[in-house]
Amino acid sequence: MHQGCAAVLCVLAVLGLEVAALGECELARLLQDKLRYEMRLQYMKHNFPIDYTLRVQHEEVLRTANVTRLRDGKVSEASLRYLWFHACSQAVLHILEVLPEKHPSRGYTQELSQLLDALGVEYSGYRQSDVDAVVADLVKQLHSGDSRQKAVRPKALLDNCLKVLRMLFGAHCRWDSA
Amino acid sequence: MHQGCAAVLCVLAVLGLEVAALGECELARLLQDKLRYEMRLQYMKHNFPIDYTLRVQHEEVLRTANVTRLRDGKVSEASLRYLWFHACSQAVLHILEVLPEKHPSRGYTQELSQLLDALGVEYSGYRQSDVDAVVADLVKQLHSGDSRQKAVRPKALLDNCLKVLRMLFGAHCRWDSA
Repeated sequence: MHQGCAAVLCVLAVLGLEVAALGECELARLLQDKLRYEMRLQYMKHNFPIDYTLRVQHEEVLRTANVTRLRDGKVSEASLRYLWFHACSQAVLHILEVLPEKHPSRGYTQELSQLLDALGVEYSGYRQSDVDAVVADLVKQLHSGDSRQKAVRPKALLDNCLKVLRMLFGAHCRWDSA
Repeated sequence: MHQGCAAVLCVLAVLGLEVAALGECELARLLQDKLRYEMRLQYMKHNFPIDYTLRVQHEEVLRTANVTRLRDGKVSEASLRYLWFHACSQAVLHILEVLPEKHPSRGYTQELSQLLDALGVEYSGYRQSDVDAVVADLVKQLHSGDSRQKAVRPKALLDNCLKVLRMLFGAHCRWDSA
């Protein structure tokens, strides 16, 4: 049933129909599909100069190891998904900022951004008090623009987005049992 | 007649036939065609990140103003074409070096490189004594890799290639009277 459902969502996305009405897990599933290896390779590696890096906020590079450490510190799963959403959205926005209107990776990156915006609606009701303090601080730093910067390859940014997405949404959305 | 001739050369190039047998002016004409605005725009601007620059040798950036200055210093036209060939070839090689195998600008840049290689055959008979001393020095510095470096956008490198090509080959090849 999950497979069939995912196929319908793909068709919806292809048709350009509104994705904002979809739920958190359906949007995360679409993002997982769009972040698959062949697409990251083509759009984030082949289409960029060798060794090209972007300067991003240190907190934007959210790795599975960071999530494991936060989990060990008893940060809630909902807070972690909230953090992932902010880190991944910022990363995608930074990639979009360096792409000219007619760059061959522009359309792909815009589609990622639209899916993340739709997912953002899910998290827009969160208030600072709903989120663990450590995560609220990280999100604040992520958007402040005045913390340490880091040079990262565009594909590495999306590699992290996907790995952490799988880590946080797999069990939550019961993908493993599909 | 020139128009017809250029069309035949284009067909030869499209068919991938040997261009090495073509003369200096025919090769310069093919290069001029391949360096036209729409192609430089697509392959050297749209397909690169915004504000992307390459670090190149200072002498690789050969502008029309440099050529005017050298002409005022009584440097021969043949020496100037020899200098242009070396500057432009190095610039194209530097662009190729930063492009992954599957980058959408790779094929275009390789074709430029092949046309320049074919043109290089025309100049391969030159010895240092055939070239004005000031140009011989500039070519040496250009290949030494130890002079000052400069950050330049890929399109700017090819803009210069084309402008100086027109300046040096227009009258030499009698394109103006075509």
